[in-house]
Amino acid sequence: MDSLFNPPYRSKRPKDGKISFISQSGALGAAVLDWASVRDYGISKFVSYGNAMDVDEADLLGFLADDDETNVIVAYIEGVKDGRKFISAAKYATAKKPVIVIKGGLTSEGAKSVASHTASLAGDAKVYEGVFKQCGIVQAKTLKEVFNFAKFFTNEPLLKGDRIQIITNGGGFGVLATDAVLMNKLKLAKMQEKTRKKIQKVSPRYAIIKNPCDLTGDADNERFRVAVESCLEDKNIDGIILILLFQVPTIKPSIDKMMIKLLKNREKPVAVTSAGGKYALKHKKNLEKAGISTFNSPFAAARCLAAMWEYVKYRKKII
Amino acid sequence: MDSLFNPPYRSKRPKDGKISFISQSGALGAAVLDWASVRDYGISKFVSYGNAMDVDEADLLGFLADDDETNVIVAYIEGVKDGRKFISAAKYATAKKPVIVIKGGLTSEGAKSVASHTASLAGDAKVYEGVFKQCGIVQAKTLKEVFNFAKFFTNEPLLKGDRIQIITNGGGFGVLATDAVLMNKLKLAKMQEKTRKKIQKVSPRYAIIKNPCDLTGDADNERFRVAVESCLEDKNIDGIILILLFQVPTIKPSIDKMMIKLLKNREKPVAVTSAGGKYALKHKKNLEKAGISTFNSPFAAARCLAAMWEYVKYRKKII
Repeated sequence: MDSLFNPPYRSKRPKDGKISFISQSGALGAAVLDWASVRDYGISKFVSYGNAMDVDEADLLGFLADDDETNVIVAYIEGVKDGRKFISAAKYATAKKPVIVIKGGLTSEGAKSVASHTASLAGDAKVYEGVFKQCGIVQAKTLKEVFNFAKFFTNEPLLKGDRIQIITNGGGFGVLATDAVLMNKLKLAKMQEKTRKKIQKVSPRYAIIKNPCDLTGDADNERFRVAVESCLEDKNIDGIILILLFQVPTIKPSIDKMMIKLLKNREKPVAVTSAGGKYALKHKKNLEKAGISTFNSPFAAARCLAAMWEYVKYRKKII
Repeated sequence: MDSLFNPPYRSKRPKDGKISFISQSGALGAAVLDWASVRDYGISKFVSYGNAMDVDEADLLGFLADDDETNVIVAYIEGVKDGRKFISAAKYATAKKPVIVIKGGLTSEGAKSVASHTASLAGDAKVYEGVFKQCGIVQAKTLKEVFNFAKFFTNEPLLKGDRIQIITNGGGFGVLATDAVLMNKLKLAKMQEKTRKKIQKVSPRYAIIKNPCDLTGDADNERFRVAVESCLEDKNIDGIILILLFQVPTIKPSIDKMMIKLLKNREKPVAVTSAGGKYALKHKKNLEKAGISTFNSPFAAARCLAAMWEYVKYRKKII
């Protein structure tokens, strides 16, 4: 049922999917839904609950935790009505599925504007942060992160460890990805010797088969195929940042189909990173449509892996 | 002169403009140029200087500082060859125009991959951070930020102070923008009484004419016109985050033309923030084409204002 104020020609409705979104702000919620429509995100349920007269965020979390059509819950929250009720609902929900929250009113001045907006008590940022952590909630810092996290948790299998392998055809991107992995408190994987040998076999001597694994600027489809396939099988690797610059002439357009096939039943999360214009965007869109997570910057990719690792650690602790 | 390896159909060339870009990584540079092409950024010069055998980053900074066709310098740097030479070139350049740097190899592992890539000494992150600060260089954390900063410095007049006014037609976005302003160490402006009265006159009683100035979800073009115009004139306000959700039915499509006219000769930076799908994107693109800076998330907008304020403070100190 569609009960939004904004007409569909101005504010597209996203396609059906597995992300449910509850928002204490109507305008923010509607804009995010509209954003989701262009990014091809599938949405299950959307609730704008405002000042929470009858139904509050805890009720909604509990409901969506039990909803089979929801795989990931996203929430914009300004204040929590009943702390204890929220904690117990949140714990119940995160035991079943990831819950991503962006909190409005983290600063004292932000809290004041919350008071004018929904009259919630925004409370102390540190307290909220602590509560979210205690409940296994993933906290996004920006709206962009909300999107990225939601996409990543929907598309990707959960990490089993924190050892990340970087594969790239651009040296500079490999360097930035390395920084991003370390700055987000993840580890660089050390690939097995048999993996190294397999990749070396199809690569020139100047390729650097370490971590980052720099296939260099003249990498072709086959080099990428072998690298991705062997890293997916490598038991020393838990997740992959795959930097794929489509612009170089040695990459054939058929790489999309190849990657979609390779990654179809992946048991590790893969974050494809690729910057560029129309040509690159077309390729990224093809991958996104097939449920592969793509990013513009290695830092955004690493942030998603780190958020997932936080959630996995929480689950390991409670189960 | 176009000497890139990648064919134009795969890697578009951006239009002519005032941003010059030097990159120690060829692939990264080419991908960023290609990215710039879809975002309608104008580029003046691009140099990929790799391991800097003949010409190093200091030479290039010095050259671009004197280049009348360059207003903003952007650099991807893995390591600096000659520290003293770099510092003096950087100081010379930043006294003339903004210099935005993204540094590869900030972590120890990142530095190791720099050694395999360009054989530069990546050095200690803290040392580089200190040097950049000492020279008035704006350091971007992610590639996305490089883009945003470059756009913002090219489009916007410099801040004269750090007092930011938020104008919005979405309460939740106003709250997030307030947090973003405070978290980025900027201040919330306190508008003059005459400004408040002007806006109140065209707004319903439930509008909240403070900071954030929440024109509420039924704001129309006229309410936005009066709010923006009077805040541009208000001497207690140094910069504006303008949250404009185009999806609501009360906003007429002519708002683009109105904003372009209003902001034409602005003497304060304005960061337009708007999330959404096709309809909203079309409007944002119209504004971007007219040299207005737009963002998806309030946090990105505040980061740009904060980066600009850092640069302005440096200039105030040296002049």
